[in-house]
Parts: sequence; structure tokens; C-alpha cells
Amino acid sequence: MAPGARAVSWEAQAAKKRADTLAKIRPEWRLSDRDLERAREQRDLTGPFIQSFLLPDEVSIVSMESVDIVDSIRHGKLTAVQVTTAFCKTAAIAHQINNCLHEIFFDQAVERARSLDAHFADKKTVLGPLHGLPISLKDQFHVKGVDTTMGYIGWIGGNLGIKDPSRTHKVESQITSELLALGAVLYCKTSLPQTLLLGETKNNIIGQTLNPRNQNLSCGGSSGGEGALQALRGSTLGVGTDIGGSVRIPSAFNGIFALKPTPERISYRDAANTNPGQNTYRSTVGFLSTSLGGLDLILRSVLSTRPWLADPAVVPIPFRQDVVDEYLARARPDGSAQPSARPLKLGVLWNDGIVTPHPPVTRGIHMLADAVRQAGHKAVDWNPPPQATAKRIHVSFLKADGAHDISHQLALSGEPLIPDLRDSFQLSDPIGLLEYQDLTLQGLDYESAYSDYWNSTAADDGQVVDAVIMPVSPHAAVIPGRYYHTAYTEAINLMNYSAVVIPVTTADKAVDVPDPSFVPLGPEDTRNWEAYDAEIYDGGPVGLQIVARKFEEEKILAIAKIVHAALQAAKAKAGAI
Amino acid sequence: MAPGARAVSWEAQAAKKRADTLAKIRPEWRLSDRDLERAREQRDLTGPFIQSFLLPDEVSIVSMESVDIVDSIRHGKLTAVQVTTAFCKTAAIAHQINNCLHEIFFDQAVERARSLDAHFADKKTVLGPLHGLPISLKDQFHVKGVDTTMGYIGWIGGNLGIKDPSRTHKVESQITSELLALGAVLYCKTSLPQTLLLGETKNNIIGQTLNPRNQNLSCGGSSGGEGALQALRGSTLGVGTDIGGSVRIPSAFNGIFALKPTPERISYRDAANTNPGQNTYRSTVGFLSTSLGGLDLILRSVLSTRPWLADPAVVPIPFRQDVVDEYLARARPDGSAQPSARPLKLGVLWNDGIVTPHPPVTRGIHMLADAVRQAGHKAVDWNPPPQATAKRIHVSFLKADGAHDISHQLALSGEPLIPDLRDSFQLSDPIGLLEYQDLTLQGLDYESAYSDYWNSTAADDGQVVDAVIMPVSPHAAVIPGRYYHTAYTEAINLMNYSAVVIPVTTADKAVDVPDPSFVPLGPEDTRNWEAYDAEIYDGGPVGLQIVARKFEEEKILAIAKIVHAALQAAKAKAGAI
Repeated sequence: MAPGARAVSWEAQAAKKRADTLAKIRPEWRLSDRDLERAREQRDLTGPFIQSFLLPDEVSIVSMESVDIVDSIRHGKLTAVQVTTAFCKTAAIAHQINNCLHEIFFDQAVERARSLDAHFADKKTVLGPLHGLPISLKDQFHVKGVDTTMGYIGWIGGNLGIKDPSRTHKVESQITSELLALGAVLYCKTSLPQTLLLGETKNNIIGQTLNPRNQNLSCGGSSGGEGALQALRGSTLGVGTDIGGSVRIPSAFNGIFALKPTPERISYRDAANTNPGQNTYRSTVGFLSTSLGGLDLILRSVLSTRPWLADPAVVPIPFRQDVVDEYLARARPDGSAQPSARPLKLGVLWNDGIVTPHPPVTRGIHMLADAVRQAGHKAVDWNPPPQATAKRIHVSFLKADGAHDISHQLALSGEPLIPDLRDSFQLSDPIGLLEYQDLTLQGLDYESAYSDYWNSTAADDGQVVDAVIMPVSPHAAVIPGRYYHTAYTEAINLMNYSAVVIPVTTADKAVDVPDPSFVPLGPEDTRNWEAYDAEIYDGGPVGLQIVARKFEEEKILAIAKIVHAALQAAKAKAGAI
Repeated sequence: MAPGARAVSWEAQAAKKRADTLAKIRPEWRLSDRDLERAREQRDLTGPFIQSFLLPDEVSIVSMESVDIVDSIRHGKLTAVQVTTAFCKTAAIAHQINNCLHEIFFDQAVERARSLDAHFADKKTVLGPLHGLPISLKDQFHVKGVDTTMGYIGWIGGNLGIKDPSRTHKVESQITSELLALGAVLYCKTSLPQTLLLGETKNNIIGQTLNPRNQNLSCGGSSGGEGALQALRGSTLGVGTDIGGSVRIPSAFNGIFALKPTPERISYRDAANTNPGQNTYRSTVGFLSTSLGGLDLILRSVLSTRPWLADPAVVPIPFRQDVVDEYLARARPDGSAQPSARPLKLGVLWNDGIVTPHPPVTRGIHMLADAVRQAGHKAVDWNPPPQATAKRIHVSFLKADGAHDISHQLALSGEPLIPDLRDSFQLSDPIGLLEYQDLTLQGLDYESAYSDYWNSTAADDGQVVDAVIMPVSPHAAVIPGRYYHTAYTEAINLMNYSAVVIPVTTADKAVDVPDPSFVPLGPEDTRNWEAYDAEIYDGGPVGLQIVARKFEEEKILAIAKIVHAALQAAKAKAGAI
């Protein structure tokens, strides 16, 4: 610091950053204090509430799904500027009432949309398959011209905490470059928790993002702002990351869809991350969307750029249409099994033996398993190697460096760890390398045992399970501070499996009544069970993950499509009775 | 140890193991002391010398290539027993004169061949694409019924040093199971160096394996016994491993072919390894063969078993015939560029800036680059990021655990490190985890920089380099104890690239005369240059590696086929002049 310069407190830096972000919203999109007060009093901010701030044309645009948006632009029915403006305005309102954005660059977005429209007018064709589609990014991805803070105050105005003019606001993550090359419009970056290692979304810059469907609850994390923004229709498609559930949790908690690929299917190059030197269990780039079609669209689009040529970490597997076709051929459009084909065989994980899911989640599993069976597919119980083992190993890797990376980033500004993380990520000695290598072997052994179990499912009927229905968490979108058990997602990261999350139901205080005869499996189960409150949870989304093996992204998307269709059919049938 | 039991010295255990192995050779295949003495006096044991111990029919069988062998058996021209017996006998003689085997199980092999013949007689069809083909395995792969010592005395009679009857001689590596399911005949396991981390083949059990083409020289390592056995035609196809060059070096040193895939293309499950907990830079299973056709045959056969279903570490990429077809379409059978297609563009690494290749290697590079150009393809200089950086990082990973794993295995019997390794692998403190993670980031950065350089080759003519011709080592098959510089292979492991080695020439004292005006690049260059001796090296094989990017095994095999054909055409043309 220059002599005589006065240190600016971390609190003041954070406050300035918050104000700067809000100041990027056009005056005509700013809400009155009265509206903000009304929003605070609202349980559910989605649907009619946020729509009340939009014009009918805007509601109609932001109610469309990703695929319909790109189709409409390609067919000249909508312009990129119309679409971008509608989503920027919705995101602006979403942020004011829900606190879900870290970065706002709506002006650049509209400028970009204008140039895309000019391209379309000039060439009579789109720039690429995402032409004109607004895509939101978790604030780990660098976009030229704006900060990537990742929730760290010390990263404001620099690049990964370094104030080097040749890098600040000049680095672009590879996925960002790919999306731009494909024609996407980037307009905002979404909130996340300090360290990324929390299933909620809290940091010292923005404070907290709550669940827009039920403000008693968390939006989940770490890609929490993505989930919240999409629940509010401020985006139909976004990019997150997942090392322990960070794409799947906010998807499940906000009633949207998500794809968590196997790491190294999608480029992570030049994206910010926590402790990137821990490369044994890797975070993966994943996608969140308000539709399965959005996930399919972005996966096939991104892979069409052959990301492995620019990022050597990416495995060169192009989009496999043949796999999609093979699986979709096994069901009719309503999800029912094709009589001429082999039905799907799905495993069902009801309980991991440590923490029993709350009633809304168990009901959701029943709904999905029943729907699958009614559609003529098979659903069988799933009893893999103990999830407790997976959780122990996985957590050890996340903590292996004794929080040295996290502490370094915090020290840049002097900000403290948020209270939620104080028990887990205090600075301490890293574990020894021999212990680290032993843990590596334990992880590989667990992965092999899990794979062997998977193969063993052919023993009864000659058919190996295609995919497994599992909870994302043992509760619906969680009461803040009560997310005690993350093994349901973490175990899947240990295997590097691919997964899709689909929304299944919402907590319903009328039916989700705890069984008074419930006997807890142990103290962890008791703690989670006692955290259930039917009144508070009422309306909280329940999503479930459908899991396939490594690098089976096309397969799991196709299966999710069948399962989701079967669920819709079952719901329609139930509704008709 | 039981009270009163006397410890058997490690020397005595090693001597007993050696004798036990020799005792498994049928009496009629044993050589006389006079023949053994003759062999010791011979410079070159290959070709006429070893053939002198075989019957003409046997010579004719073991002179065939892998593809012709399986074709002959499939068409009923040869039986599996005939083939197996010929290779077992040749391997038996090879071992007696060259010391290249760790395990011999010829009786089981003939029994297996008999059952394959019965299958063929009964079903009129082969069991699989490798039906009846003898395949040799480096002594890291478990075969039921026999030891895997990996050169450790403490592993004799146990499994990885543990004398557990439920595991000893009962574990089967996945690649072993795959080869058996494909119809292969397994008959021997080949020698390797203590620790696997040496470019020669020496251990306290077998002593040393020399180069059968020139007994002044080393057979290379660590898959050294494989290379030697194949040079003696005791095998046409074998399985090795490569973490720093261990498949490529013995291939180059013995005048045969090799494929080093990207790790996780081929299953390593349940194979023995050094320090398997170091999973950041992984050893890869690779193949050595007397023909390119053998490499193609085993790659497509093994992948046809879908190894990723049983081994979750394997990336699910089936054999890509379309890639093979795409590249082969770019040349005629003689390797010359198809006028209708784009010629290949090959990089050429002449010198890594640290150690200049000896004259035979530089001449070999010229031969290959000239042949490629004469065939109408492009050859351009290759100037990647400094190989010294790659070497520093790579070696740090191999040494990271302070030789704890190695020391543990040695302590089982009390045997010492072999002298060649005493400077490198003394027991010491492991490096700290933060340093390990920092090295990980350095490795990833290097990989990215190398990939960026590769992409930059399109700048001049719009065409990215397809593959790169590189030395395997800065010398022909090396004088024992003079292998100072392994960066040419190690750098490729840091990128996890795929590579094929082809034989190019042999050292020739008449032409490979050092330039008296040579100015060394530094002390390492001086040391290597002074180790050149035209007289001793005369006849030593020179192979070169052709390198492609990650998971490009089909591509690099196709390119190697074109390049090798072009080389043969150039040689024929030169010979005709």
C-alpha cells in the first residue's frame, strides 16, 4: 500500500461492490422501496409475483424454453435484442428481490444481441446453434470486461486476486469463448457461496441468496444463484460447476433441471476454482436449465466446438447421437416402454443407511419409481457399497490442503470465513502425501467396488441397471443452516458419474407428515429428521438425480427424458382420476 | 517367522527363483553348456543364431506376424498347439541365452491351445479375434497360477508381497481376463527392472537382460524383457506399461513396434505397479509387437470387450474405425500422399535443447523426415515448450513419495536397491502436499502450453500438425549404465499423449561418425555425447516415436502405417540406386 494510503475495510469494499452491481441496472428497471418491501414479505417470488413487474410480451418471452427461443430467432419471429432485453430486465428484477447475481453486464449483452441481429439480417443465417440465447454463468467463469470475484472480496478489481492490468478483466474462460462462438448472449454472472464448498449460497459480498420459490428456504449451492435466477425465469440456461453436488443441489432446490457430466467432458480451462491443485477429484462444469431440451442443446452445441482441441484436459468424445437414439427408441414419447424394445431397468436408492430422506423426498422417490413401473419399465432396489465410505474419502480430499488456498484468498482482503464454514475450513496443516496417496487408493477401490455392484445387477434377469434414481439431498430445498448431510451427491462425485436432475414434486404439509413410529438410524439421522418442519418446508421443491456411469451424458439425458415423460404421464393420470 | 526357523537370505531366494523358472523348461528345449557359451560370445543373438536351435517348421511359424498367425489358425492352416509349441520353444531358448523371462508356464499354454483347437474343431469357429495367438506379458500382470514378482524378491510366492492364500496366484488382471476371453494363449511373463523406473532391465532376481541384437547394449526398460523376447521372435505381441517411456524405449532398442496409449484407454485394473497411489501422472498399459498389424489387432480386440464396463477407470471410447479410414485415405499403400487428399503434416523434433541425439538417431530422423517428404507429405520443425520443464515436473511426481513404496517392497526380503537406482530412490521424506499440488498445477500449465503450441502450427498454412516425429532417446539401444537423459519420452507422458514407435535404422559405425566440430549444449549434452562409441553401438537399433494427442490411438496407428510405408519405399528406392 502506498504510504499515507488508508486501508479500505473489507466491509466497505463489499458494500461498494454491491452498490456498483446494482448501479448497472437501468433506472427504469429499478424497483421501488415499496416493491422491495413487498418482495421481502412474499413467500414465493416466482410466477405471478415476478411477472407483475414485466410486460405481457416480456412474460411471454421469458416463459419460453431455450430450444424455442433459438428456434424463434432462427425463424425471424423474435430478435436477439427482444429476447436479451426481456431476460436482462427479468434478471434485473430477480436480483433486486432475490440477490442472485454477482455481475451484471446487460449493456454489453444488448450490444452483442444487436450485432447478432445484424449478422442475421446480413447473412440470413444464425451465427451458431445458440444464436441470440441469453446464457447465465456462475461467477467462476471469466468474461472479458467484468470481475470474477467467486465471492472473495480480495478478487474485486483483479484476476484471481492479482491486480495485473494485463490479466484483469482480460481473461476469458474457454467455455465462455465456446458459448460466444456458438452465438450465445452473456449478460450476468450468478451468486455462489464463499469457497464453493457449501450447499447454500452465502458470501461476504452479496450476503445470501434465498430460495425464490419459498423464501424460508435456501436456494442451494454452490451454483445457487443459477438455480434461483432460473426459478425466476431470469434465465433458461446457465453454466455451473459441481464437485460435491453444486450443480445438482440448486437444480433440485429450485425445481429446474441439471446435467452434471463426468469431469473432463466439458472444458474447465481458465475458469476460477477453489484449490485447483487438488486434481484427484475434480470439479466438473455442468449445466442448469428450465428444460431438458436446454441441457441437450448446450451439451451438443458445446461439444460441436471440439473443446478438446483447445483444452487438453477434455476427453475427445463428440456428441453421440447414436446413444441418444438407442435409448429414446426404448420408449414412446409419453415415456412408456416400447413393446418391441427392452424396457429400461432403473435402480432406486431409497436411503443411504446414514440419513433417511424427509417425507417429501421419499414421496418423490415413490412417485418416480411408480411412474417408471406404470410406464412398463423396471425399478429395482439399489444397495451399493456404503455411501459413508465415499463421503469420508471425498471430504478428505476437499480438506486435504488444510484450507491453505481458501485462507490465502480470504487474507487478500482480511474478510473472515462465513460462519457456516468455520467448523470445516479453518487453516490447518495439510495432510501428508502418503496419507493423500492412501486416500487415492481408497477412492479407486471404492469406485471399483461400486462398478462391480453395478455389474452385479444383471444377476437376476440378465439386464444391467441402466441408471439409478437417487435423492439429491435428504430434504427438499433446505432450511438455511440445516444442510447436514451431503453424501447423496458427494458419493456420485467420487465415481465421477454423470447425472441429470429433474424436478419431481414440492413439499406439501398436508401429505408430508412424518411417521411418528420413525426410528432414526443414528445421530446424523436424528439431527436431519428433527430439522424437518412441514410448515416451513411447504412448497419447497424436490428434485431427484438420475445417475449413469462415467461419460454417459447422452445416455442419462435420454433416460431422464423418458423418466420425466413417464412422471408427467403419471401425474396427468392421477390428476384425471 | 516360526521359532527356530532360519531366515533364507535374499540372494538364496533369488537363486531358487531363477532355478525354478529354468526348471519349467522341457528337458528337450534346454541348451547345452557349450551352446550357452557360444551364445555369450555372440554379438547378435537374433535371426540365424536363435533359428539354429529351431526346426524349419518352427522358424516358419515364429517368423509369421500376429495377424497372419490368427488368420492361419482361423483358416485351419495351423493349429493353436503348433503355434503355441513353436513360440514356447523359442521363448525357452530366448530365455536361456538372453535372460528375458520372469515366469514360464508353457505347459498351461499348450493345454490352453489344445482346448482352443478342440473348440475350433467342435464349433468350426474361433473363440475370438486372438484365438490361438501367443501373447507375452510384462511381469506386472497377474495370471492365475503363477507369481507376479515385478522383480521384487519379497513378492515371490505371494501377491504383492502378501502371503494370503486367498489371493496368491488367484488374482487375474483385467487385461489378462480380456486376452483370454479373446482367445489368446498366455505362456510367459517378461523381465523388467526393479521399481519399473529405469530404462534398462536389471533386478536382483534375474540380474540383467541385455540386447539380443547387440549384447554390448541394453534391451531397454522397463518393458525390456518384452522387447528382447520379440527381437528373438519368442513373441510377436506383448503387453507392457509406460509411465516415462517403458513401452517405447524397449521397442526402439529392439527394433520392434509399440503403441503407448493415453492412460485410461486400456485397463490397468488389478495389475501390479510402483506406488499406485501416485495417480496424478499415471502409467499406461501399452503394446509391443513385431508388426504394426499386431498393435492394430490387439487394440481393436481389447476395445471390443468394452473394458470400461469392468474397469471404471477406462474411458468409454470404442475402437474408431472411421478415424483409421480417414487417415489411411490420405495415402496410397506405399505411403505416398493421395493427390485427392490433404497430405499429412508432421512435426519433427530434432533436438530438445538439452541433449543432442547421437549420430545414428539424428540420421534416423533425417531418413524418416526425408521419406515423409519424398512421399509428398509435409515435415516441419517442432519447437514446443522446453522439455526440461516437463522432465523436472515429471520426475518430481515419480519421486514425490520419497521412495516409500519402493522401500517397503525391498524391506520384505531385505534386498538392496540395484546400484543404478541408488542415486534416485533412496528412502526420504515425501514432499509436502502443497508442493505436490503446486507441481500438479505446473504440469497442467505445461500441458496447456504444449497444446497451444500444437494448435499454433496452423498459423503458416492453415493446417495443424497431425503428429510429431521425435527421438525416443538420444541414442540407439544404450550402453548399459549410460542412459542419462529420459526427457524425450517423459515429456510425452506429462501430456498423456498417444505414441507409436517404429524401427527406423541401426547404428552403423561406417556412417555414424561424430562431427568433430560438435559444440555441446551443456554438461548433460557433453556427458551423453562422450558416451557415444561407434564401435560398441554398431548394429544397435534406432526407433523413433510418432506422437499424437490424447486418446488418438487409432489416428497415430494409421499415421505410423503411412510413415512406415513411406520409409520402406524410400529404403527400397535407395537400395535400387
